[in-house]
Amino acid sequence: MKIALFGAGVMGRIHARNINRSAGCSLAYVVDQDGDRAKELTASFGGHADTTIDRALADDTLEGVIVASSTDAHKVHVMAAARAGKALLCEKPVADSLDDARACHEAVALAGVVAVMGFNRRLDTVHQDLYRGIAAGEVGTVEMLRLVSRSASPPDPRSAAHSGGMIREKGAHFFDLACWLAGADPVEVSAMGGCLVDQRFADYGDVDTAILTLRLEGGVMVGFDFGRRTAYGVDELIEVFGSDGLLLADRQAVPRAIRRSGRDLIQPGLNQDWHERFAPTYVDELDSFVRAIRGDQTSLALMADGLRAQAISEAAIKALTERRTITVQSVWVA
Amino acid sequence: MKIALFGAGVMGRIHARNINRSAGCSLAYVVDQDGDRAKELTASFGGHADTTIDRALADDTLEGVIVASSTDAHKVHVMAAARAGKALLCEKPVADSLDDARACHEAVALAGVVAVMGFNRRLDTVHQDLYRGIAAGEVGTVEMLRLVSRSASPPDPRSAAHSGGMIREKGAHFFDLACWLAGADPVEVSAMGGCLVDQRFADYGDVDTAILTLRLEGGVMVGFDFGRRTAYGVDELIEVFGSDGLLLADRQAVPRAIRRSGRDLIQPGLNQDWHERFAPTYVDELDSFVRAIRGDQTSLALMADGLRAQAISEAAIKALTERRTITVQSVWVA
Amino acid sequence: MKIALFGAGVMGRIHARNINRSAGCSLAYVVDQDGDRAKELTASFGGHADTTIDRALADDTLEGVIVASSTDAHKVHVMAAARAGKALLCEKPVADSLDDARACHEAVALAGVVAVMGFNRRLDTVHQDLYRGIAAGEVGTVEMLRLVSRSASPPDPRSAAHSGGMIREKGAHFFDLACWLAGADPVEVSAMGGCLVDQRFADYGDVDTAILTLRLEGGVMVGFDFGRRTAYGVDELIEVFGSDGLLLADRQAVPRAIRRSGRDLIQPGLNQDWHERFAPTYVDELDSFVRAIRGDQTSLALMADGLRAQAISEAAIKALTERRTITVQSVWVA
Amino acid sequence: MKIALFGAGVMGRIHARNINRSAGCSLAYVVDQDGDRAKELTASFGGHADTTIDRALADDTLEGVIVASSTDAHKVHVMAAARAGKALLCEKPVADSLDDARACHEAVALAGVVAVMGFNRRLDTVHQDLYRGIAAGEVGTVEMLRLVSRSASPPDPRSAAHSGGMIREKGAHFFDLACWLAGADPVEVSAMGGCLVDQRFADYGDVDTAILTLRLEGGVMVGFDFGRRTAYGVDELIEVFGSDGLLLADRQAVPRAIRRSGRDLIQPGLNQDWHERFAPTYVDELDSFVRAIRGDQTSLALMADGLRAQAISEAAIKALTERRTITVQSVWVA
Repeated sequence: MKIALFGAGVMGRIHARNINRSAGCSLAYVVDQDGDRAKELTASFGGHADTTIDRALADDTLEGVIVASSTDAHKVHVMAAARAGKALLCEKPVADSLDDARACHEAVALAGVVAVMGFNRRLDTVHQDLYRGIAAGEVGTVEMLRLVSRSASPPDPRSAAHSGGMIREKGAHFFDLACWLAGADPVEVSAMGGCLVDQRFADYGDVDTAILTLRLEGGVMVGFDFGRRTAYGVDELIEVFGSDGLLLADRQAVPRAIRRSGRDLIQPGLNQDWHERFAPTYVDELDSFVRAIRGDQTSLALMADGLRAQAISEAAIKALTERRTITVQSVWVA
Repeated sequence: MKIALFGAGVMGRIHARNINRSAGCSLAYVVDQDGDRAKELTASFGGHADTTIDRALADDTLEGVIVASSTDAHKVHVMAAARAGKALLCEKPVADSLDDARACHEAVALAGVVAVMGFNRRLDTVHQDLYRGIAAGEVGTVEMLRLVSRSASPPDPRSAAHSGGMIREKGAHFFDLACWLAGADPVEVSAMGGCLVDQRFADYGDVDTAILTLRLEGGVMVGFDFGRRTAYGVDELIEVFGSDGLLLADRQAVPRAIRRSGRDLIQPGLNQDWHERFAPTYVDELDSFVRAIRGDQTSLALMADGLRAQAISEAAIKALTERRTITVQSVWVA
Repeated sequence: MKIALFGAGVMGRIHARNINRSAGCSLAYVVDQDGDRAKELTASFGGHADTTIDRALADDTLEGVIVASSTDAHKVHVMAAARAGKALLCEKPVADSLDDARACHEAVALAGVVAVMGFNRRLDTVHQDLYRGIAAGEVGTVEMLRLVSRSASPPDPRSAAHSGGMIREKGAHFFDLACWLAGADPVEVSAMGGCLVDQRFADYGDVDTAILTLRLEGGVMVGFDFGRRTAYGVDELIEVFGSDGLLLADRQAVPRAIRRSGRDLIQPGLNQDWHERFAPTYVDELDSFVRAIRGDQTSLALMADGLRAQAISEAAIKALTERRTITVQSVWVA
Repeated sequence: MKIALFGAGVMGRIHARNINRSAGCSLAYVVDQDGDRAKELTASFGGHADTTIDRALADDTLEGVIVASSTDAHKVHVMAAARAGKALLCEKPVADSLDDARACHEAVALAGVVAVMGFNRRLDTVHQDLYRGIAAGEVGTVEMLRLVSRSASPPDPRSAAHSGGMIREKGAHFFDLACWLAGADPVEVSAMGGCLVDQRFADYGDVDTAILTLRLEGGVMVGFDFGRRTAYGVDELIEVFGSDGLLLADRQAVPRAIRRSGRDLIQPGLNQDWHERFAPTYVDELDSFVRAIRGDQTSLALMADGLRAQAISEAAIKALTERRTITVQSVWVA
């Protein structure tokens, strides 16, 4: 199965390598406006390098497109791929505005193509176990969730000009996880944030540290602790509190020996690199995408889920600015 | 040293027992408007039982008063004790409004008496270790705090009529801990809450589940997860995130053997009773109060700290109602 | 209730302080051949200081004796106290030979006095939980036990001349725990040991590091890891393996905050001092002894249990020397 | 690179699958006296199925042989492969007697072929970290090791007729790990064992539960807890005690969410299947074997290490029978 890759950045490289190693598919095109970046990937993992998406989309034998370009290019790429009838795996966030995200969603709905979101964290073994535990009633009625996500190292502040900023970028994953785990749609959100890591993020209207609170339908309350840098690796944790108990996807240690010395017990810490932490989920994601193209029912997040997460992001950004609780726009009505 | 106890409820009983066991002091009076409750305590732990505070405050040999009456009686008790020149240990919250709390603070300042707050959690061994670690720079600059406090069992919803409600009652402890640990005063607060445990709390304008976010001077952001009931004991945790690391006062297990069986590793859970969890802190608190009366410098929280916590509570309650971020009133200007 | 203390060393000081603080009893005599050591304790905790046991045993109002003298003086002290009709709490080991231990046991049996052993570890909260768990069938049939005991700091090698050596001293506690937990008597023992900490222990025929293996009636096998020094505090652990699961009394951390920094998660380590680790057990032990004198059924180990542990020690020392498995002498036949 | 596999049992299947998936090599022959078992593997993973080793060894293009036949067939297979000049990966134990193991070692030495042992546990990430930590001096001088290995489920007792029994089978891995980690050769061993799991093992002179103690050169003492069945999965643990600290390769939990409910904290347990636990080590082992054939220096255990482990096994079996400490025969002198 031939797959095209739009975007040859960090995410593009991950997908290119996985496509190359996969038994079921091959990398047919890599498109990036920076032609050299595209060629670097095709040199390692095969396919044609292009600076525009035209040739790839004109290829009738191409079955799928992975949109891993910068966020502000998503709308154009998603709509073109949908119109060309290609199945789509879109990296998060869908777009950098709710209108654009809605446009993407409508385009894929109209085209009737497979359109899944790159919400790879849903596929993590322990997150899957959380989901299963909630469904099995292990915590009774879900009442509160706590999601912590602090990156190990901050991106270049200038990237905020194209990425959509921390709330959209990081938020997309965790807003989706919260709704997916609780099985509920968003109602309203409040937010507090600031630049404690690097004041330059403020130049792009971005924050690097934030606490957000989201109310879901049915009354579940969800807290998010977001940050752009830690001194101890990739810090992620999800806690689900319910009437009958607590489920915790704890910070996950790397495998290592434990040491006792002096007054301390020294245990292994966290992955220093997010990709190392979540590498298997990208492999599973590609595999699921391929199977979805072949017609299997997929457990991947859909474009509609991406739109829902986007609606929360936009409300959260507004809440941050206006210092009040903002109602999340419903995404289910066209 | 003779100590009087105002209030013969749950907190009163804890203080009565500790005074009785202490080498340094004796329980001279127990005052409660319910005379039988007062007599129950004096029968076990000594002293005179009264239904009014007059006789106790008229006793020149009485050196200290512990105010453990219901929150709505604090103002009268604190002001009377201060006017009588007695040293004071006041249970939290100071009062059920900021005005009353301010009146208490002014009364003790005017009288020049020792006036400490029953913020016993500051005295917990692990909390002390957190404080010491922050002061020693173990996490660099403090950026975020997370404080979780979920009680094992909810109080009778009707108690909310006199207790001040969850935000004041529970909040007092944790707002104080946050400011004390971060060494910073409050700026603004946002809140989201609801009744997920027992709808009857709403009849008293109270919530039983809430997430609050507080900004401190210097930019530190603090999240609070509050709840009135768990299915697994007293759930408390404090996390301090800084530029150089993370410090965690984790949920504290009871001592017990660990068991492996089938697919599980079964570790001991939490205390089922808050008093069991924090019993040593009340003993230390009494000891510190006695030493403060004798003229030692005290590390106990002062009435001014109680007033600061109250200001946060009042702003949080307003934020909850008005669904927006509320500036916390400064308590340092009269 | 008047209690006499024979021996004013480390153990003597622990007992003297606990007797002084106990509501139910008073320290009447402290006897030590070093009169100044005895006086030091009486100065702090009350009672008469003597260099011989005669005056104490002649006191008709004296009800109990704690034998905390050096091991080689136990026989004389135990037999004299028994003959005087005094209740006895004997520190471990009973003696430094099986014959002497048997003589002690026969003397107390003949006198019909209360005679309990200072096997305080039985009283530890987690050890009690292990015992209860085994009795409740939580591991099914017990098949293997593992007991680790490594002291934080070695004693002066010269003390081995009077203490009976590591196998008797340390072994007494753990041989008793094994038989008590498994509910079975010893059959045979093998041993391997050496001086890895301090070669000077060899001058007294002692070892500072040893692994012992004990077979109990019914086939349970028990391994012991003994050592005289660690670089990380008091290292103790008991593991009970059974047909249906595993129970573990794990190394017990001191209460402290947890820290993440760099690639590590730094958890609190162990007590640096054995007394700090087991302090509550000595209080409970004294309390149980007092109640036993008053006629209550006691859960403390008896002199017969001390004799059983001694029989294992003597066999283990022989196994060490002769490099073969040694049958443990039955202590139940006179 | 063409590889032949001798033996189509459980281990054979693991190797066949890994060879099939490896980029660097192909499965050329599968030999098993049960031709159907051989054909099952070749049907899935390629290659010719044979009931004798002749055709494979006559193939000049064959470069390596994996000996995964039953223990009592190893000698014939190893010697034939060596004589044919093929590189060898031999499953443990080398043989079921020291004489046969020595014969194997001499044959490969004479032939000058690459001959490595299937001591895959050396390649486990955490074991590698232990090794590195010891080498880096993290525990100072090594003094004691503790290795626990209890299988989840017992083999059919009748297999003991061909496998060499628990001490040889299981012991080979752990005797090798102990010597490798401590960097020292064996001196003497003592042992205690029995049939607590299934009395039928005794019919083959085997035990299903054993505690062994090994002294290494330099004085390090090593304890082994072996068992054939647990009620909680694959129970493996290695503890390295040294003068400056402790290193622990702890029981390794499967990834799963943690749950709090009632009085318990329920953590994930252990793998239920040894292959699941150690799967990556077999992939790395094959990869290392292939690179060794190509002339790279290998970090795999050599046939000489297998011989050393065998010498310990034989001494341990003798110690078990004769109930005394047995000197381990030196394997370095022919």
